[in-house]
Amino acid sequence: MYKINWRPDKTHPMPLHLQIVGYIKEKITSNEWSVGAKLPSQRALAGLFAVNRSTIIAAMDELAAEGIIEGNTGGGTKIINNTWNLMNQTYNWNGYISSGNHQPNQMIVQQINEAESDPGMIRMGSCEPASELIPQEKIQSILKKLSVASQPLGYEEPRGSLFLREEICKYLETIGITANPSSVLITSGALQGLQLISLGLLHPNSTVYLEKPSYLYSLRTFQSFGMQLSGIPSEETGMNIKKLAEKNKNKKGSIVFTIPTFHNPTGTVMPLEKRKELIHFCEKEGLPIIEDDVYREIWFEDPPPPPLKSLDSSGLVLYVGGISKNLSPGLRIGWVVGPEPIITRLSDIKMQSDYGSSSLSQNVAAELFASGLYEAHNHNLRKKVKIRRDTALAALNEYFQKTATWNIPTGGYFIWLKLNRPISMYQLFVKALSRKVLIHPGDLYEYRSNQHIRISYSNASLDDIRQGIRILSELVEEQLT
Amino acid sequence: MYKINWRPDKTHPMPLHLQIVGYIKEKITSNEWSVGAKLPSQRALAGLFAVNRSTIIAAMDELAAEGIIEGNTGGGTKIINNTWNLMNQTYNWNGYISSGNHQPNQMIVQQINEAESDPGMIRMGSCEPASELIPQEKIQSILKKLSVASQPLGYEEPRGSLFLREEICKYLETIGITANPSSVLITSGALQGLQLISLGLLHPNSTVYLEKPSYLYSLRTFQSFGMQLSGIPSEETGMNIKKLAEKNKNKKGSIVFTIPTFHNPTGTVMPLEKRKELIHFCEKEGLPIIEDDVYREIWFEDPPPPPLKSLDSSGLVLYVGGISKNLSPGLRIGWVVGPEPIITRLSDIKMQSDYGSSSLSQNVAAELFASGLYEAHNHNLRKKVKIRRDTALAALNEYFQKTATWNIPTGGYFIWLKLNRPISMYQLFVKALSRKVLIHPGDLYEYRSNQHIRISYSNASLDDIRQGIRILSELVEEQLT
Ligand SMILES: Cc1ncc(COP(=O)(O)O)c(C=O)c1O
Ligand SMILES: Cc1ncc(COP(=O)(O)O)c(C=O)c1O
Repeated sequence: MYKINWRPDKTHPMPLHLQIVGYIKEKITSNEWSVGAKLPSQRALAGLFAVNRSTIIAAMDELAAEGIIEGNTGGGTKIINNTWNLMNQTYNWNGYISSGNHQPNQMIVQQINEAESDPGMIRMGSCEPASELIPQEKIQSILKKLSVASQPLGYEEPRGSLFLREEICKYLETIGITANPSSVLITSGALQGLQLISLGLLHPNSTVYLEKPSYLYSLRTFQSFGMQLSGIPSEETGMNIKKLAEKNKNKKGSIVFTIPTFHNPTGTVMPLEKRKELIHFCEKEGLPIIEDDVYREIWFEDPPPPPLKSLDSSGLVLYVGGISKNLSPGLRIGWVVGPEPIITRLSDIKMQSDYGSSSLSQNVAAELFASGLYEAHNHNLRKKVKIRRDTALAALNEYFQKTATWNIPTGGYFIWLKLNRPISMYQLFVKALSRKVLIHPGDLYEYRSNQHIRISYSNASLDDIRQGIRILSELVEEQLT
Repeated sequence: MYKINWRPDKTHPMPLHLQIVGYIKEKITSNEWSVGAKLPSQRALAGLFAVNRSTIIAAMDELAAEGIIEGNTGGGTKIINNTWNLMNQTYNWNGYISSGNHQPNQMIVQQINEAESDPGMIRMGSCEPASELIPQEKIQSILKKLSVASQPLGYEEPRGSLFLREEICKYLETIGITANPSSVLITSGALQGLQLISLGLLHPNSTVYLEKPSYLYSLRTFQSFGMQLSGIPSEETGMNIKKLAEKNKNKKGSIVFTIPTFHNPTGTVMPLEKRKELIHFCEKEGLPIIEDDVYREIWFEDPPPPPLKSLDSSGLVLYVGGISKNLSPGLRIGWVVGPEPIITRLSDIKMQSDYGSSSLSQNVAAELFASGLYEAHNHNLRKKVKIRRDTALAALNEYFQKTATWNIPTGGYFIWLKLNRPISMYQLFVKALSRKVLIHPGDLYEYRSNQHIRISYSNASLDDIRQGIRILSELVEEQLT
């Protein structure tokens, strides 16, 4: 009955036991394995899948946690649920679920996304600002203004609200970027900017060079449209340009993706000299750049060096920014700045994707800029985030002295904690979750990295930051011994 | 110097002269043809491109209108601009602009999108409700409420705000659809719902059966991800099911896309009996359905038959709805309702596309439903839109008696005007534009249709509707004689 034609996909970042979970779920939803059926023993399954028994145990734990199987005291394990029976649908959609161009998020990202909305969770992984960091009163004052003075909200023009684009151009000027409103596209968050670039500008099969580790590894956007991610070793000053030069075979259609300022997840900042060098190198090689700059305003002592875009005289940088990190993620406002024909192309695809971002959000964002509240808020924010960073660093000093090392971020939200020895990240993730601590294991940001945790101090309260780090240290020590 | 290796793409819906415009632009931006150079004579170009001289003239008109070439009294035509020099970028992005998985909008759709924001335009094509149809006071009263009582806006959970999803479920109940919040995904407009379905559920190479003509022909979404559109002849009662049966070769992964209620662009309504028949047929064939129902609330005498989704006991219908047409397009709120595993898959891709829709928009929409303002507004709206429809019908009776026939819509925004004889739609479009009337030529909705115009009465004022139809009738008569 249990014919297993599963093969491990070693190139896939998903851990083996989750690949097995996926396979079993498919069998169940397709009714090949039906509800009520008894599963073979763990030993037998290990044989059938040709994996270690510990992998099977991890897979069974996962399936049990999702309420799909249940062990009984007699020792057998039964399928008790085909997961998705809530609507009683009988139509078989399975062929469709596994179709489509777009890859699913890594299962662990899906789990994180779900756990994010659990209010009891200490969120040590999230890059979302805590509510106390969102200028709610300022936003409310603007809603009040709009409640008397706003216009009916129709569809916007392709690039987004002109008022907002003008305000963004004024803001960009303050960080050294000269742009006119036609070279700005409003997006629903910086993330959508990245999706539009991958959908609209990149060849399938082209290569995206990026820091290793990088935020981009946690997405499936570029890979879904056929691009390869090629990690460039990264050091304290960001991407190693020599290594980039070695890797870059001058393939047509390649692009560099970089987060030069308060990098996610490493917190590093690329110094000015290196920024110039990178621009120079890319000009020479004809290699365009995506600069993701969403953490720029969150600095603690001194403002960071100017963006790559401000140093770009030939128009090879696509600049991606937004207000999610320093103002409000829920408004979903971001922007892409670049040469006009590129912005035209991207805004066309934006129109085809969703006919533009929420006009209401755009109006609120524009008013935040125009009224000066944006700048005033950043000023407050920096002080508050610095206290959070210091709290996290103090807790790390107290609890992780013997088991890890870390950077001291000068801005942004992240500490890239390096454990002294590798451990099973997934196990740590699951154990932490059971103690109500939600972390982002490092392997989200670098395939098969099993020695790093991204600690974010943006979301949990100061007490929770301390407690979360304490709990984590216990779990890490448990796993290390 | 002017080597032309251009070939007409006869399968492409873009008119030949615009294909030529695109080709010439590429030559110019790639610097093969440089600014300052003189172009060959029209006659010579016609020879080089192997097209009629009238096609060349149309192409030259377009290039001149865009400020790319200029004729002089000496008879020569010069390249005066490489279009995209505003940022003075020297980096050559051309390889990228023509790359990417996503196809550009048809050039005429791009032109329309640009012209939409010209305030002097009589918009006879737009499916956007006029400002007087948007309940601005109601929305402002909600902004006022949120200006004292709202929570800081963070990222939402993957499916969108639970409050809004609950409210949508209550609303769906009133139109016969029983759904729980986990089977609802909030999208940025109905359009994004369609994009997510094409990205997430459909095989490249799968077939989408749809009414011919259909709104979907005006998009490039499905085609960009490799799907084929297969038009099914449509009659007064909507899609012809017999013809669907003939075409459907039971190809795996196919899907039906239908707008059964106040169809765009034909205004037709599928009667209840036929709805049942379609569901029955699709169940038998294992063919899932996308039901696009965005015009449902805009009815004049009697409510339309219940949605297909309400007749769907096996879960094969994906229901797409939204508030753009009857409430406010600028909020960008739509929804997809379907079996949970499908919604899970789509919400995962939504998270990867933009981390969810604007929370502010979602809150406003939820309050509109919860407060009863949604329902109250629909009531008002219907009366106002009916007057608009009647105005349009009266003007058609006055001006188009001799040159066209049309349907009498019982709801929605569209009259599908059928001219007695074919004419050049693009010429009509351009001429109308020059008289400040913006129309949607029928070939947007059906390849190579040259006998239809979609008249929308949703946007222009009553006076403008009359005037627009008068101007159109003059232009049509001019072209017919
Ligand atoms: C580096 C980086 N870029 C982009 C984003 C996306 O931000 P948003 O889409 O909310 O603007 C994030 C947030 O997760 C990020 O860390
Ligand atoms: C049939 C149909 N579906 C979907 C849409 C998209 O509407 P939304 O603004 O909700 O994305 C439109 C509007 O153009 C439409 O006519």
